[in-house]
Order: sequence, then structure tokens, then C-alpha cells
Amino acid sequence: MSNELSPQTRIVVAPQNFSFSDFALENGDRLAEVNIAYETYGKLNSDKSNAILIEHAFSGDAHAAFYHENETRPGWWDKMIGPGKAFDTNRFFVICSNVLGGCAGSTGPSSINPETGKEYALDFPQITIKDMVGAQKRLTEHLGIEKLYSVAGGSMGGMQVLQWLVSYPHAMKSAIPIATTARHSPQQIAFNEVGRQAIMADPKWNSGNYYGVEIPKAGLSVARMVGHITYMSEKSMAEKFGRRQKSDQDTTKFHADFEVEGYLRNRGDFFVRRFDANSYLYISKAMDLFDVSDGRHLSEKFYELEAKLLVLAFKSDWLYPAYQSLDIVSACKVAGVPVSYIEIEANYGHDSFLVETEKQSQLVRHFLTRVDEQIS
Amino acid sequence: MSNELSPQTRIVVAPQNFSFSDFALENGDRLAEVNIAYETYGKLNSDKSNAILIEHAFSGDAHAAFYHENETRPGWWDKMIGPGKAFDTNRFFVICSNVLGGCAGSTGPSSINPETGKEYALDFPQITIKDMVGAQKRLTEHLGIEKLYSVAGGSMGGMQVLQWLVSYPHAMKSAIPIATTARHSPQQIAFNEVGRQAIMADPKWNSGNYYGVEIPKAGLSVARMVGHITYMSEKSMAEKFGRRQKSDQDTTKFHADFEVEGYLRNRGDFFVRRFDANSYLYISKAMDLFDVSDGRHLSEKFYELEAKLLVLAFKSDWLYPAYQSLDIVSACKVAGVPVSYIEIEANYGHDSFLVETEKQSQLVRHFLTRVDEQIS
Repeated sequence: MSNELSPQTRIVVAPQNFSFSDFALENGDRLAEVNIAYETYGKLNSDKSNAILIEHAFSGDAHAAFYHENETRPGWWDKMIGPGKAFDTNRFFVICSNVLGGCAGSTGPSSINPETGKEYALDFPQITIKDMVGAQKRLTEHLGIEKLYSVAGGSMGGMQVLQWLVSYPHAMKSAIPIATTARHSPQQIAFNEVGRQAIMADPKWNSGNYYGVEIPKAGLSVARMVGHITYMSEKSMAEKFGRRQKSDQDTTKFHADFEVEGYLRNRGDFFVRRFDANSYLYISKAMDLFDVSDGRHLSEKFYELEAKLLVLAFKSDWLYPAYQSLDIVSACKVAGVPVSYIEIEANYGHDSFLVETEKQSQLVRHFLTRVDEQIS
Repeated sequence: MSNELSPQTRIVVAPQNFSFSDFALENGDRLAEVNIAYETYGKLNSDKSNAILIEHAFSGDAHAAFYHENETRPGWWDKMIGPGKAFDTNRFFVICSNVLGGCAGSTGPSSINPETGKEYALDFPQITIKDMVGAQKRLTEHLGIEKLYSVAGGSMGGMQVLQWLVSYPHAMKSAIPIATTARHSPQQIAFNEVGRQAIMADPKWNSGNYYGVEIPKAGLSVARMVGHITYMSEKSMAEKFGRRQKSDQDTTKFHADFEVEGYLRNRGDFFVRRFDANSYLYISKAMDLFDVSDGRHLSEKFYELEAKLLVLAFKSDWLYPAYQSLDIVSACKVAGVPVSYIEIEANYGHDSFLVETEKQSQLVRHFLTRVDEQIS
């Protein structure tokens, strides 16, 4: 099933940029110049009360919906964002920005360091989820938005949602953290660490100094392959590939015999063309360092909160298991924050929030309708 | 808790070798010379009816129990094998051999190819689990054993157990496949493939020609790190490491911040000193190619069987989940083969069969007692 539309029905969106200077980071460092790449879908109403901020996952970008000029595939959450969809652009003004530290328009390790005129590489400071969210707050202020109607996102996007709740407890009416956690478990850290080690094991990584030379394709591709296994479920892999052998006649030793091997190699090859290896290191480390409750009870962080929450998890998601979502729900209950929780039956593992969106759409649409009946 | 003994109580065992020539492989190739490294524990009785063959897992070796001269740590399943233990060497003659394709004494890709006088490297033929078992059959015949009292092993060891049942259905009185499967799922293939890709991405791998030069440490270490995550459970990682940070003051970017990262790096570093990268490729591929039922119903393969089975799985094992053991149990039921099945409560994930051995010991001891009350 394709969600491509004929050229006539495509809504075109253009990337935008917002820059500011001298940004103080959580670790005490400062960034002299920051650019945040973002997109918007729908129209901001006169009292600026209909804005929803969408947070992307680890390897996502600002292009959440609609089509870029001449593009044949829409943004990464186009199933969820658009006229009449869950995040209904007939009602809402939807914003998505590339995270600080990223490589899709926002300032990150592949950006030019104004002090040296060369790419930052490992001179880029270790940014955190809190820093990402802080930069987004600047963006919403720049757009004149005091209070968001909602903040929503899955996986690392959900971590940013939680950080918004803690950093700016009065800045939103609602929040939708999906398939996420208040802190990474050692298993989640371990999978990220393997990805980092794969990149740093590639001699072409060259301590991060590969810009303008040759990128560490092999290492970055292995990192992505590990990731892909964790994003799927055993069941979805079994349904998609089974033990089917590849049909090609390649008899090279240790070529891809099975379809699942060919799939992973393709995903790896595709990824290295669009993602920066140093951004992989910085962003994955930001996820591992993230603990929205600073080692305390999460509920203590939620007492000031004025928002309503919808927390979603997926039954087949073994990377961000449902118990981590339930920890968030418990904290809401203890703090007296209104919360709905649904564990969705979906086969696709962690990626369900991106690909099995039907049930999720219904729940989000219904929740957003009830957040504020007075919205015009 | 250490299972090291004082030097006085250590039983010393010496490695042995068995060689034969012109071994026909499943894929049609032949090996001119084969050496199988093995060890034995206990004494073979006069009618040679008390022999138990132990099968090792992916990275195991023939040293299953007791101590080598001057060694401070015993073999890998010493908790299970010895006087009064589950595989009681006061009653049984226990054999363990290094698999064909391995790198701990048996012929594998790092062995000298008699045709060239140099290491095989990728000229080594693609061996299978069936070939490994075929070589073991030669070893048992060499030892004069017609019928084994039992064949037992976990993980890839369990695959070999299943292959014994299918290849030589009259050659054993009992079998104990543990934490294993009749065929790899696409997820299991995918994890192995990531390990292979990590090795082959290392330029030092050099298409397998690294002998006498420099081994592909970095790639092999990443492969092992991925493996280690899959061998543990989320819970055992949480108990062992939590989110504890390392105490060292290393401020290098992307060094190991968390204990779990340091642990994985150490396991990787330790592994590259003892394991051959090409053996990793060949043996992991043999596991992926393994399908003991050749795509048919496993029960059809079991009709000739005369053995009793004990099938064990572990609740926290997500790499070889219990449903795969239940497939084996079902096949036994359909074929009328006597089978006992236990899913053991253990926290340690797939590695439970190596480390959480108390309950497993009880079950194995009890099962072996009942296989044949007449054994002397």
C-alpha cells in the first residue's frame, strides 16, 4: 500500500530556517551560532493557540509531512499529519524542526564552526535532549507561540516531549509521548554503544575528521543494520522475510543468502547517503545520557504540569517496552496529571508508530478533540 | 560466587586429538585432512554404554570441564560436568569436541590447507551443522561407541543435538537440546549477519587474508558486542549495570560513560584474543543455514527416533525464545517420541544455560537417571 498521491493532490511544503546566536548548553558550553531547520503545515490562527509541535525520532528530520518540490515521497509522518488526518492541518498549525546536533539543516557536528571556518567534527559540544528542546522553545517564541496546543512524537521524539513537560510545564495544553521512555535502560544504551563502536571502528571515521575526504560508510552502515533489527519485531521480520533465500545467483562467500540480509544491507547503504556519522554519535549519546527525572521520581517533575497526556506504546515494541511507558503513566497519576494510556496491538515492533498508524491516528484524533473544546 | 577450587581439588584434563582424512561435506566439497580436538571426563565402561556427548555453543570449545594444567578457571560447563554433578563423571564418560570450522584445535579456516601449505582462509568450504555432527560421529566410532547414552548442548550445541537425532536416529538413548531451535528465524539470521558485516567492514579483515599480518580486531570486537547484548536479558542487564556511570575520569569524547559500555568493550577485547574472525563467519553462517527439518514438518524427521528427549528453554531468553523449543516438543509428540519440556524461570537470558545452572542441573540429573535404570 503506497501513500503516494498523484502530483495534482500533493501539497508542497518548503523548508525554513531560524537562526539565533550565543546558545548556552546544558553542559556549560556555548554555541556561537545556531540554525534550526523547520517546516510548518496548516495555518496559525489569530490568537496563536492552535500550534502543535512534532518531535522527530533519532534519524528523522524536519520534513514530517507533505511534499518538497519535485519529490515523489512525502515526509516521514505524512500518514499522521494533513487535512483530515490525526494532526489535522485544517484545524492545527503543525511545526516540525530538525534537532540540534542533527544533519538535516540544523546546526550539528557537520556544520561549519564559525571560529575555525571548518566543520566542527568532534569539537562540537555534547548536546542533550534538553538542549534540543531549548532550541525548539526559541523557535516557538520566534513564531509568537506562548502555549502549544500539543507536543507529540515517538521514540527520541517522545523523549523530547517529556523534556518539554519538565522544562516548560506551562507551555502546552497537551502532550503525546509515543513508544518512549523517561530514561534509557542499559540494554538501550548497549545497542546505541554498539552502533557508535561500529562507526569508530571504521578507519575512515578518522576521529571524526572525514569531511571532504571519505565518509565511514562501512561502520555507519553496520550501525544502522543493528538499529533496524531493534526497530522491527521478530514477528514482523518473520512475516516480511521468513527464511526466503535471495533469488540472485551471487556465489561470493558470505554474500547475502537470505532476503533479510539483503534488506538490512540495503537499509545500511541507503542510510549512509543521508546521515552524518558524527551526528549518529552525538545524538545517540544524547539519548543515552537522557534521564528526564534526574534520577528522582518522575512524578516530582510533573507537579507543576498543566497539560493532559496521551501515552501510547506498542505490544510488539521490544526496544522501548510498554513498561517504560507505564512508568510515565504512573508518574502522571501520582502527580495528579490527567493521562490516558493505550498499549496498541501492532506487529511492527518499535517502528509501529511510523508504519502501523491506523489505530494510533484514531487515538490521537480523539484525544486532540477533547483537549480543548473551545478551540476555534 | 566463584566456582574455582583450590589446586588440591582440581581435576586436570588434557586436550586430545583425532584425525581422519577425505571427509565428504554436505555441500559436495571434501576436506583432505580433518582434526578434531576433544576432551573426555570420567571413564568409559566395559560395554561402552555410558558415553555422553556434550555439544558446545557458537564460541565454545572442547574444554567443557575440569582444569588444564596450570589453569585457574575450569572448562565452560564445569558447573554441569563432574563427580556428582548433573553429567556425573562417576557414572558417565563425557566427551566434548571442538566443532569443525572452529578455531580451538579442530580443522577450520585458520588451519593449514595441505594443498597450499598456507591457512585456508576463505578457501575453507562452507561447513554445516550436519558436517560438524558427521565429524563427531567419526570420533565416537573411533572411541568404539555405538550408542551414546545421551547427546546434550545449548544454543548451537542444541542444534547439533537435533542434527544428531535426525542424522543418526538409532545412535543415542536420549538427547537434551537446550535453549535452541530447529531453524534460525530471520531475526536470529539478522543478528548474525550484523556480526559478519562488522567483521567484513574492517579493512584488516582483508577478504579473510589476515593470518600472519594483523587480525581484524575492531570488527570482530563489534560483532561480539552485538552478540553479548543478545545473550543477556534486559532484566539481567538492569540488575548488573543499571545506569551506573564508570568511575574513571576519561573525558575523551564517546568513551564508555556507562558501566554497561565498559563491560561490552571488555568482552569484545577479550574475545578477539581467543577467536578467529573467519571461524566467526563460517560458524555463524552454518547456524543460519541450519534447518534440521529441511523445510518439512520436523515430526517427519523424528519417526525413526528411539531416544527420549528433555527439552529446556529459559523464560528470559529472547534470542532463542521458548516457542522455538515448543516446536521441537510438538514434533516429538506428533512422532510419538517421549519428551519432557520445562521452561525454566531464569533471569539471565540466553546465557542462562551457562550461568544459571542450578535448576537445569536438577532437571538433567533426574532425566539422566530415568533414561535407563539398568546402566551399571
